[in-house]
Amino acid sequence: MRLTVLQPQHRTPEPGPEAREKCGVFGVWGEPHPARTTYFGLFALQHRGQESAGIATTNGEALERHADMGLVSTVFSPETLSRLDAHAHSRPGPTTRPGGAIGPNRDSTTGASLRTNAQPLMGYFKGGHVAIAHNGNIINAAALRRRLEDDGHAFATTSDTEVVLQLLAANAQSSLFSPTDALAAALRELKGAFSLVFLFRDRIEAARDPWGWRPLVIGRTSDGHPVVASETVALSVIGAEFVREVQPGEIVTLSDNGIESRRFADADIPHAHCVFEHVYFASPASTVFGQSVQMIRERLGERLAAEAPAKADLVMAMPDSGRSAATGFAMASGLPYREGIIPNRYVGRTFIKPTNEERITAVRLKLNVISEVVKDQRVVVVDDSIVRGTTTRIKMDQLRDAGAREIHLRISSPPIRHPCFFGVDFPEPSQLVANGRALDDIRRLLGVDSLHYLSLEGLLEVCGSPSVPAGHYCTACYNGVYPIEIPAGLAKDMMGCC
Amino acid sequence: MRLTVLQPQHRTPEPGPEAREKCGVFGVWGEPHPARTTYFGLFALQHRGQESAGIATTNGEALERHADMGLVSTVFSPETLSRLDAHAHSRPGPTTRPGGAIGPNRDSTTGASLRTNAQPLMGYFKGGHVAIAHNGNIINAAALRRRLEDDGHAFATTSDTEVVLQLLAANAQSSLFSPTDALAAALRELKGAFSLVFLFRDRIEAARDPWGWRPLVIGRTSDGHPVVASETVALSVIGAEFVREVQPGEIVTLSDNGIESRRFADADIPHAHCVFEHVYFASPASTVFGQSVQMIRERLGERLAAEAPAKADLVMAMPDSGRSAATGFAMASGLPYREGIIPNRYVGRTFIKPTNEERITAVRLKLNVISEVVKDQRVVVVDDSIVRGTTTRIKMDQLRDAGAREIHLRISSPPIRHPCFFGVDFPEPSQLVANGRALDDIRRLLGVDSLHYLSLEGLLEVCGSPSVPAGHYCTACYNGVYPIEIPAGLAKDMMGCC
Amino acid sequence: MRLTVLQPQHRTPEPGPEAREKCGVFGVWGEPHPARTTYFGLFALQHRGQESAGIATTNGEALERHADMGLVSTVFSPETLSRLDAHAHSRPGPTTRPGGAIGPNRDSTTGASLRTNAQPLMGYFKGGHVAIAHNGNIINAAALRRRLEDDGHAFATTSDTEVVLQLLAANAQSSLFSPTDALAAALRELKGAFSLVFLFRDRIEAARDPWGWRPLVIGRTSDGHPVVASETVALSVIGAEFVREVQPGEIVTLSDNGIESRRFADADIPHAHCVFEHVYFASPASTVFGQSVQMIRERLGERLAAEAPAKADLVMAMPDSGRSAATGFAMASGLPYREGIIPNRYVGRTFIKPTNEERITAVRLKLNVISEVVKDQRVVVVDDSIVRGTTTRIKMDQLRDAGAREIHLRISSPPIRHPCFFGVDFPEPSQLVANGRALDDIRRLLGVDSLHYLSLEGLLEVCGSPSVPAGHYCTACYNGVYPIEIPAGLAKDMMGCC
Amino acid sequence: MRLTVLQPQHRTPEPGPEAREKCGVFGVWGEPHPARTTYFGLFALQHRGQESAGIATTNGEALERHADMGLVSTVFSPETLSRLDAHAHSRPGPTTRPGGAIGPNRDSTTGASLRTNAQPLMGYFKGGHVAIAHNGNIINAAALRRRLEDDGHAFATTSDTEVVLQLLAANAQSSLFSPTDALAAALRELKGAFSLVFLFRDRIEAARDPWGWRPLVIGRTSDGHPVVASETVALSVIGAEFVREVQPGEIVTLSDNGIESRRFADADIPHAHCVFEHVYFASPASTVFGQSVQMIRERLGERLAAEAPAKADLVMAMPDSGRSAATGFAMASGLPYREGIIPNRYVGRTFIKPTNEERITAVRLKLNVISEVVKDQRVVVVDDSIVRGTTTRIKMDQLRDAGAREIHLRISSPPIRHPCFFGVDFPEPSQLVANGRALDDIRRLLGVDSLHYLSLEGLLEVCGSPSVPAGHYCTACYNGVYPIEIPAGLAKDMMGCC
Repeated sequence: MRLTVLQPQHRTPEPGPEAREKCGVFGVWGEPHPARTTYFGLFALQHRGQESAGIATTNGEALERHADMGLVSTVFSPETLSRLDAHAHSRPGPTTRPGGAIGPNRDSTTGASLRTNAQPLMGYFKGGHVAIAHNGNIINAAALRRRLEDDGHAFATTSDTEVVLQLLAANAQSSLFSPTDALAAALRELKGAFSLVFLFRDRIEAARDPWGWRPLVIGRTSDGHPVVASETVALSVIGAEFVREVQPGEIVTLSDNGIESRRFADADIPHAHCVFEHVYFASPASTVFGQSVQMIRERLGERLAAEAPAKADLVMAMPDSGRSAATGFAMASGLPYREGIIPNRYVGRTFIKPTNEERITAVRLKLNVISEVVKDQRVVVVDDSIVRGTTTRIKMDQLRDAGAREIHLRISSPPIRHPCFFGVDFPEPSQLVANGRALDDIRRLLGVDSLHYLSLEGLLEVCGSPSVPAGHYCTACYNGVYPIEIPAGLAKDMMGCC
Repeated sequence: MRLTVLQPQHRTPEPGPEAREKCGVFGVWGEPHPARTTYFGLFALQHRGQESAGIATTNGEALERHADMGLVSTVFSPETLSRLDAHAHSRPGPTTRPGGAIGPNRDSTTGASLRTNAQPLMGYFKGGHVAIAHNGNIINAAALRRRLEDDGHAFATTSDTEVVLQLLAANAQSSLFSPTDALAAALRELKGAFSLVFLFRDRIEAARDPWGWRPLVIGRTSDGHPVVASETVALSVIGAEFVREVQPGEIVTLSDNGIESRRFADADIPHAHCVFEHVYFASPASTVFGQSVQMIRERLGERLAAEAPAKADLVMAMPDSGRSAATGFAMASGLPYREGIIPNRYVGRTFIKPTNEERITAVRLKLNVISEVVKDQRVVVVDDSIVRGTTTRIKMDQLRDAGAREIHLRISSPPIRHPCFFGVDFPEPSQLVANGRALDDIRRLLGVDSLHYLSLEGLLEVCGSPSVPAGHYCTACYNGVYPIEIPAGLAKDMMGCC
Repeated sequence: MRLTVLQPQHRTPEPGPEAREKCGVFGVWGEPHPARTTYFGLFALQHRGQESAGIATTNGEALERHADMGLVSTVFSPETLSRLDAHAHSRPGPTTRPGGAIGPNRDSTTGASLRTNAQPLMGYFKGGHVAIAHNGNIINAAALRRRLEDDGHAFATTSDTEVVLQLLAANAQSSLFSPTDALAAALRELKGAFSLVFLFRDRIEAARDPWGWRPLVIGRTSDGHPVVASETVALSVIGAEFVREVQPGEIVTLSDNGIESRRFADADIPHAHCVFEHVYFASPASTVFGQSVQMIRERLGERLAAEAPAKADLVMAMPDSGRSAATGFAMASGLPYREGIIPNRYVGRTFIKPTNEERITAVRLKLNVISEVVKDQRVVVVDDSIVRGTTTRIKMDQLRDAGAREIHLRISSPPIRHPCFFGVDFPEPSQLVANGRALDDIRRLLGVDSLHYLSLEGLLEVCGSPSVPAGHYCTACYNGVYPIEIPAGLAKDMMGCC
Repeated sequence: MRLTVLQPQHRTPEPGPEAREKCGVFGVWGEPHPARTTYFGLFALQHRGQESAGIATTNGEALERHADMGLVSTVFSPETLSRLDAHAHSRPGPTTRPGGAIGPNRDSTTGASLRTNAQPLMGYFKGGHVAIAHNGNIINAAALRRRLEDDGHAFATTSDTEVVLQLLAANAQSSLFSPTDALAAALRELKGAFSLVFLFRDRIEAARDPWGWRPLVIGRTSDGHPVVASETVALSVIGAEFVREVQPGEIVTLSDNGIESRRFADADIPHAHCVFEHVYFASPASTVFGQSVQMIRERLGERLAAEAPAKADLVMAMPDSGRSAATGFAMASGLPYREGIIPNRYVGRTFIKPTNEERITAVRLKLNVISEVVKDQRVVVVDDSIVRGTTTRIKMDQLRDAGAREIHLRISSPPIRHPCFFGVDFPEPSQLVANGRALDDIRRLLGVDSLHYLSLEGLLEVCGSPSVPAGHYCTACYNGVYPIEIPAGLAKDMMGCC
């Protein structure tokens, strides 16, 4: 899979990868520079969301936030981070310890509402000031929102996250609940995928949906301060050690008391981890659902070589995401691995919209084929997945133009044919190249000599483990089997989610 | 009164005038270019708020908004206005008529929350999408907010206006109320000064508090489209005719049905129009509370000449706000009117903070004394009011340095000695030059040969009229008599208002 | 005269006043904060140029500069000024004294070359690093440029000022000249209006053309540091005392040695001071060509009342530039002075281009007529000059619509009928309302009951003095008599000047 | 070699790679969208300069330019490109053909002079309007500049390129030369490395220094329009075919007449192509000095495996620049190639300066080690070169921490020990890790089990070819043998070059 270059508008954030994760989240409590540390954590999670970023800190009484559109590197200045850290240190009373910080990266809806929807979402309710960072997609958000409006609530934004906020506030009203219990009560009403991080005045609360769709892990800095993050790569970068995953259905509290835990949902709900995290989304440098992503991808390539070998002279990757599987394929097949397509590192997320004549130029700009490598060769090209197939088709033509004798395309995951309602932003099914097409039709369309996808069985055998057996993965985008019921008409409401 | 030049920070919006109005509001329905027309209306009302501006339009189903920090001239581009107007024209169904637009200018709180608090405030509730523009100060906002939080509401901002939104939503929940009645019910809970303009999907609703503190007028464009504005000058600028004031306690609806009216409060609540609108705030080009502001100010100068004549060679003004009264004083006294102080037109709201040594430089920069006019002369200097007196003192020194033989300072309103809770943002009472000082002490402090303020009786006689008798004005800042009870501890809560 | 509101483009700097001065210049040597002091000086001279501003400082070896498009208030931050001042203090060797600073405000050409043409112009030549600020118009610049190009010089910009730089460099090559003499030699080649300020590594040199078209004065701060400025108002603002004018044909050196003088041109060249500085350009707070501008303008109004009295009820001004003459007219005629037109202070230099239908809206926005003042009255309206007449015509209509019974328009200077080649940027002659029209035609076109301009004799009698007799003024824009010969085809070349 | 993360200042452009090329240049004549095509060409050459970019077009009479600091993607908007292209199409006379465009990417000096030094440099001289884009370093620039100043020339900037401009102008003065000959005469005075592209009103002239240090090639679009570019990758991206290299000492003219050629220097000057272009600088997708860069790098890895084999379990690369050689090493050694270090794609050129404690965090952020790949393994790590060694050292420690059993570091080029005066911006010699250190000292400092650099002989054998024999390369950075004499004290003057 690779970046799309054909942009609908100048300097709007690019849709970027053809499939998009919703968010990455990070939080740390009591660390000397919580905002600065969160900045590094968000940097490590940048692949989970590139459109906006934000950080909030608490001083034990009130929260302060900075958030804006853009990459982490452009949203924050040293002055901003210092201001946020100074706020965390201004705790009243005898304590000399700073408060905490949380922050998300996001890929979000576009247009006029952008600034209003900036995250972390801030709110005020009976329990005080709160900030919320959210990774996932709540499939009953529209229904909850209608119920809350009927109950007299007004919303400032169109985001799912504000539904969480108003639910929290509504549950906090009753004298039966402490604000803490109110959180569990609110979470019990949510259906779908969510890894949520809340910054309250005196603590961070991190919760993961009962199905465990998205990853969420806790760690500890070298000085013992608790950390929460979407992926372990954020722990590695700040030099924190991995403690454990937040369990599906669990709330973990990070505070001056260290790490505490409680459950908001039964433990016997069947897990449904997103297998696409292993295939494409998560950083290869992370351990997700208990396993190294890089190792998984290499092994997917090895398995692919076993399932669909090719008589060829060399193995090459569609960079950058296909490289891990390609090296695995090369090792298993004994063929040499070579770099036959070179990506332009400067084609980022802002790019002038090419005219029709310029489309091929744009693809050539992003990915340069090295004729000397492929000329007269039988090449195996490995990619992790195909979504629309547009770029793949152009690139296969260019390989052919460069003199490749045979092209054997190998994909290290099954064909994507169904929508995701749990946080992956695929295009409409009609735009998926595998939707309604038999394998040979796809092959002809892409113009290659042979095409093979990894089987679902192969994928699950590689991803499964004693602690996370194959049956604990959600594979709905491949086989259309959704772990929970999808409300009718959801697709339409999905636009404003997250 | 005049601009303060001594700024606490570079390029923060200047506090500007020593006393500040909270907002100006404007709305128009069904006009061919509602956003563009609102842009001109807000330009005409810029004196009522210089820190931020915003416009929202409706297409009958949803609202679109653009708002930002800055003057109207910098917040809006032609593209933005065209986009907002195009939205108003995208009404579904058979109608070819556009929807409406509203917008405020505001002077608001500073800091991190600025963008979040941008106005018009947008919200979603049972009655649909709504935008709210607010001029005034609601004195029971904190109490209402606490009650709503106890009832399970969460707030996204710290602004009073969101209290109005959540009240509206809360009242809309009950099946007893239509959304329309919900508005009246919500307004009945508010205490204080407010001129509110709501943009709903299918109409504008404009409401004025039962005491009538702030002005609010309705007009009609040359094509018959209904308009609402804080002041008549906005009607004049767009070529609309003045229809009438919105009555205290009245809600006026502007829609495809033209102008409709209903009341949300009893008509017998005693009126309390802000007399400071006549003295300083309102545009001299407006008719406020039934009278021309420019004529009132000239007559205040004439009355001042009668109450406190001076043996002098010439009359001059503290520009620009003292000029109308000064010409009135000159006419009544028979002395020649001359321009002895010239303002620098380029000293705007952003200005580098002067060091202590530069303060006098900064005052000299804003207001240049013309030595040739004042040298060896006995001069009458007329100003509309004195707040802190800092600039006045420096300026009187400079007049003396320039050779003025005698300085007779005349102020066309009484001394300000009490805080305002109804939308005027005076500094703390301890900073008011007249607070706790007898007239002669003030005179000595300012270094003038004679000093006279207009009497409260004189002020009210000039401002009173058959339709708005003297007793219908609020004069609390002069005599401390507040028309309604002020909640204890209000001053502290006032910071986040509007 | 007043601001034009009808703009050709959004957010390009407005042409601003209908006639534009080219630049204001300022310099100070050895003062503790030379850049900061220059900032205040430029602020005081902002009326002489609103499109760009810049400041350069020297540390005795190299120069540093900051310049950008925009008003002084937006171009400079405290950090920038501190950096420039720190540079001035980093002089090597035993001295503890800082170097100096110079800076211009400018109204310049637009478009792609803007940044390149930013001033002060910086250059490197045999004499070292130099910065140049220029007010005026050099009429033989094109010829000099062609000669220099033929001699093998390349130019980086299209500005006249670079012609001065290359002339200086070319004269510095010969061993016959010291760099100092090279300056005098270069200046002797220039024809036209120029007040030039050079910052060399170790001194400021200020020069004024032999005809004395534009003002240029020297002063001394309260600590004795030498200052040079276009107008005395810049001296007043920083608390410096006026020493004397730079004489026509003189070079004044400001350095560690104080103020030194030499001549580069004969003293017997007839002077040609621009009378329009008195009429419109200079600040009323300045003393120009030996006389107070404010007093001159009042006396022009008095003289106008004598030349062209009117039977009327009141006198009012076209604000703001007509106000001084209007008060003079009122004093001389015995009629009351009143404010009948109120300017909107927020209509600045950036303004969305009005559509045709909005033109009248735009004029109404800039200048509000007060109906209550003019209704049923016979009014005298005084303005300082008329250029195109467009705004005047619309405004006279609005006075009539507001109920004025009779309108007597009085202009305190003669009709402008000829182009200026010496630094005033009038529109093309065909656009001047007085060009080719008899007085009564103009009167009918403007729609007034009577119209009178001040006679040229009257103007010169008021402006003349023992030290600057009437014959020492340039009045070419009124009578077409040019003090020096104008090269054929100059108008075409004028676009890129300054 | 890899990116440096330790930045001296927030948001100044990063020095980026530890060694920096000066510029990339591109030009095209007569093509329908010359600016847009140049935009794509510059995008393909972005690796040659990341600090600023600019494009100029000609309409046959005058030139227009847009240039700014930043990457190509941020400097140009569609509007800017359309404006530049429209200018090229506005040629007077009967022709309907557009003019041409040129543009550079640059890495340049920082600070106040940035904007002034923006490229392409624009100038006016006897031959008309000209724009110049420059890749290289002229070692006698300071001497030429002093001579020109002595001759009476003034300079607007400190850049070498303006020396070229003034030389051109000086040579154009004499009637002995046509402007064309003036160019050859000017170029004959230059010593050092330069690939220069000039845009004149009616043509592009492209010249390459007599030694051929930097690459410069010509091509032809599919419609036959002539193109010039630093590297062939820019031709590929726009779909143009490669015609040939510009010869050392040759001037190639691109105009309505197609491609014409003349020489400005003798053909027998010994060539000195920069071998570091093959090792690191040039795009792997380019053919440079007659050979595919990617193939050269693979073969350097193969040769390295032959010269310095290692008993190990796997081969991995320092990404991204070491990857080509690493795959070659793997192929030659029969060891599996795996990805053991994953770069963070979002760590760009703007990055908050890490504190001392954060340095290791910053390196971890840029390059993530995959423990599961390296644990208990004997790993060969291949990189293309080492400059300072700072990042390498930290990264080797992290490999060790991740459990690598043995680390065998292999570098596919010899140790860098001498400064470059021909366009590569290495740090000072004292900062080079190989300077004054024996191989084993470097090994110990980097903390690896074995370390080998490719021999110079090996490098030259791989890079040599029948058409470009080994002796035609400059290898001064490795062995200190400079092809031409270096002026004393050059290093000091080098700062402002290019």
